[in-house]
Amino acid sequence: MTRAAPRPEPRLRAWEARTDVGLTVLSAGFLLLYACEVLLTRPGSPAWRALETLLWVLWAVFVADVAIRLWLARDRWRFLLDNPLDVLVLLAPFLRFLRLVRLVGAVSVLTRTLRDDLRGRVSAYLVVTVSLLGFVAALGVYEAERDVPDATITTFADALWWVLTTITTVGYGDRYPVTTEGRLVAAGLMIAGIAVLGTVTATIASWFTEQIQRSRTEAARHDEPDPAGPGTPDPATWAELLAELRRLRSRLDELEAAPGQPPG
Amino acid sequence: MTRAAPRPEPRLRAWEARTDVGLTVLSAGFLLLYACEVLLTRPGSPAWRALETLLWVLWAVFVADVAIRLWLARDRWRFLLDNPLDVLVLLAPFLRFLRLVRLVGAVSVLTRTLRDDLRGRVSAYLVVTVSLLGFVAALGVYEAERDVPDATITTFADALWWVLTTITTVGYGDRYPVTTEGRLVAAGLMIAGIAVLGTVTATIASWFTEQIQRSRTEAARHDEPDPAGPGTPDPATWAELLAELRRLRSRLDELEAAPGQPPG
Amino acid sequence: MTRAAPRPEPRLRAWEARTDVGLTVLSAGFLLLYACEVLLTRPGSPAWRALETLLWVLWAVFVADVAIRLWLARDRWRFLLDNPLDVLVLLAPFLRFLRLVRLVGAVSVLTRTLRDDLRGRVSAYLVVTVSLLGFVAALGVYEAERDVPDATITTFADALWWVLTTITTVGYGDRYPVTTEGRLVAAGLMIAGIAVLGTVTATIASWFTEQIQRSRTEAARHDEPDPAGPGTPDPATWAELLAELRRLRSRLDELEAAPGQPPG
Amino acid sequence: MTRAAPRPEPRLRAWEARTDVGLTVLSAGFLLLYACEVLLTRPGSPAWRALETLLWVLWAVFVADVAIRLWLARDRWRFLLDNPLDVLVLLAPFLRFLRLVRLVGAVSVLTRTLRDDLRGRVSAYLVVTVSLLGFVAALGVYEAERDVPDATITTFADALWWVLTTITTVGYGDRYPVTTEGRLVAAGLMIAGIAVLGTVTATIASWFTEQIQRSRTEAARHDEPDPAGPGTPDPATWAELLAELRRLRSRLDELEAAPGQPPG
Repeated sequence: MTRAAPRPEPRLRAWEARTDVGLTVLSAGFLLLYACEVLLTRPGSPAWRALETLLWVLWAVFVADVAIRLWLARDRWRFLLDNPLDVLVLLAPFLRFLRLVRLVGAVSVLTRTLRDDLRGRVSAYLVVTVSLLGFVAALGVYEAERDVPDATITTFADALWWVLTTITTVGYGDRYPVTTEGRLVAAGLMIAGIAVLGTVTATIASWFTEQIQRSRTEAARHDEPDPAGPGTPDPATWAELLAELRRLRSRLDELEAAPGQPPG
Repeated sequence: MTRAAPRPEPRLRAWEARTDVGLTVLSAGFLLLYACEVLLTRPGSPAWRALETLLWVLWAVFVADVAIRLWLARDRWRFLLDNPLDVLVLLAPFLRFLRLVRLVGAVSVLTRTLRDDLRGRVSAYLVVTVSLLGFVAALGVYEAERDVPDATITTFADALWWVLTTITTVGYGDRYPVTTEGRLVAAGLMIAGIAVLGTVTATIASWFTEQIQRSRTEAARHDEPDPAGPGTPDPATWAELLAELRRLRSRLDELEAAPGQPPG
Repeated sequence: MTRAAPRPEPRLRAWEARTDVGLTVLSAGFLLLYACEVLLTRPGSPAWRALETLLWVLWAVFVADVAIRLWLARDRWRFLLDNPLDVLVLLAPFLRFLRLVRLVGAVSVLTRTLRDDLRGRVSAYLVVTVSLLGFVAALGVYEAERDVPDATITTFADALWWVLTTITTVGYGDRYPVTTEGRLVAAGLMIAGIAVLGTVTATIASWFTEQIQRSRTEAARHDEPDPAGPGTPDPATWAELLAELRRLRSRLDELEAAPGQPPG
Repeated sequence: MTRAAPRPEPRLRAWEARTDVGLTVLSAGFLLLYACEVLLTRPGSPAWRALETLLWVLWAVFVADVAIRLWLARDRWRFLLDNPLDVLVLLAPFLRFLRLVRLVGAVSVLTRTLRDDLRGRVSAYLVVTVSLLGFVAALGVYEAERDVPDATITTFADALWWVLTTITTVGYGDRYPVTTEGRLVAAGLMIAGIAVLGTVTATIASWFTEQIQRSRTEAARHDEPDPAGPGTPDPATWAELLAELRRLRSRLDELEAAPGQPPG
């Protein structure tokens, strides 16, 4: 618990760099196995037991990873504060699917190479993240609710439909979770829903601002009076200003050379 | 599957330019016939069969158009990626009404000629698009749900009411789709609802920003101290700066002419 | 239907200026009488009949006003396009309460004199408008629903509660309108709800942007490096630039005066 | 009721500065006792009576504080207008938990010392405020609803779940308040929900704008053409402009010194 050096964590970063790809692949495998378990097997069947064992083994790997990172970290409190999801997953084993958030990180790397502009990247990221989180949430809520007596989410199709009504904040209420696990999944989904709404709005607003700025600049370029008030001068004005100054300086250079000569 | 030239698609563009008006008219006809079929006939009646046949013929025309465009495209993968709706409609014939999205495109051309400012155009576009999509979604969900035993959307008025509660993300839950087709319609509508919310917010935010900028500029013009911090200098300041520079240069010109004379 | 002069409507404007205060007072009276009728009397009672008659008389005054304005307008199509609510109210007498939108306009005048800054004005306007519209919508939906067999909104308290769940787009669905009139009120309320959400977000976003700009300017003033990238130069920089140019010009003035003298 | 001096309230400010910490501690104690009363005791039991007495004593302290502040204030109407929550709490004793809003204020001080950037501070503030308000609202609605015959919120877990569905504006409608007290709590929560949505969106939008501005500046620095139109010149351009002007002036200084010499 040494709080001496707060920032550089070379050993931690080195470990994370080395294990990043492996853990992402394991997470993808975890998602696949988890989906198989939830969708294809019934609790208690031999196949279910085999998959469950495999998932616990993968789980142990993730726990070991967090333990090693905690041990490597110099500032351990900061590590715990910076990785709340890791801690949450350790404390609540039934929230295993939270571990899949790592996949979202992997996706963000993929989209980074795909597109150039921020808005395109955010949109691609949003679509992939929402799809992945929605699928995982549907798995989680379906697993939690399917065998509960008065549940309304009893098929995987219902679970997907419920995810849709929740993440868009429509919330018909024809399907809703009744177990604590299901409601925890719902909490995560609703918070994600608010973030999605906010990001969509922000993306549109930013596009909007850009369009208005662009059209205003074009109006300025054609010497039309700007109908929407002043705003920032466009680069043409800038170039003009700087060019004027440079011409001015070269004049002065000539001037300096000239007046000494006539008298000489 | 030649991936040689990614950008220019002269043959594809030429075809699209030639068929654009015709396909838009056909889409409008499709919407009209589809509305008649859903609202005026019962499945199985002779009138229903006639309209259904006509719709399938129009459908075949649309499929042929997509096929021809795919064949004309040099970069076929890119064509499929750029036209996801076309592909979706080909794969899922019961989502025929998606084809009507083309009409929205046509509307966007109309609104472009109507108004000058971006915000007005976006508002007009929003109203028309939402009305059209809402009407088509109501038709689609009504067709899917009306004859299902435990459906809650059993009249067209119910369908319109449901569309309203969904696209505004209110979601009372007194009406909701229970069939897969109906839920797919709902998914599209909810996504549209989020986009609508975002666009409305962005429009208001942009209006807001403009008002604040404008009042700040006016305050600056009247030499009042700006209460809300600095901001951009207004065009008057710009003009002053440039005029100062030009006066400076003309001075130098005179100066250059003058000092040669006194000694002369 | 002369479409010659599209803009100036001197006669129409004069009429509107003269009748504005009177019609606003009549609208307020209309709201009061309408609230009394809905909340204090039962349909069919003598008091109800008296109030109903009074409301129809006021209604006739409003219709006369619209008719006169339409007759005074030079460009009548434009008048109809610019005043869609007036037309709607004429066509659908049971939507009388829409007439009360005029009161909102009156409120906007009040708030204009109250406060100085745009954000404060918008907030005050929002609170008053939402309260007024919510109250009127509760009256409208209560009048429409209270005597319908399978209605869920049967008391005025229920109506107010329903207005709240609708305008915030929460939409529990424990109360919802079942009549066409009630659903039309709901449609207006939902659209208002989206506008409210958008305006609240835009207000917060604008406050946000201002705070960030202000703190950045202060950072620049204290010569600290700007952590968040460039941004606009602050007025101090501007003053510096202009002062520099003026000093430069006065130098040139001296220079111009000087070189002539030494040789002299 | 002297309306002479509207602004300075030295006595009021002095009192508030002196009692601030004490009242915040008392508010925290109030929340703790209130939570104990609602969650651990049944109405009518001896423990409940003891806690209820304690809460009323604390309540009296709060009332005394408001009374003293009202008495100290020079402009008493303004005081009432500026402190609507205080007035509301005095008039409606059953809304005692509103008093806890003071705790939110205390939290805002905590977060202010925690972080440097506005966005981080707003996020921290949002998380703490929403958690605190959500917890208090769950206590309030649970107390109001738990013993009502046809209530749907009958356990504290239900109350927390209801708070979540309400503040995110999802609103399934599986749980909803039926008492007036519960609905008043809901009203506060919904308004908070809209503010939360707006703040999240504004935070994301501001992050977005900054990212785009930053990447544009970097593009400008590398002399690449700006793909998204002009925008504001970056500080480098500014520095260049000012440097140019200063070099120009020093040239003129030399020039002024020089022409006097050759003739000398």
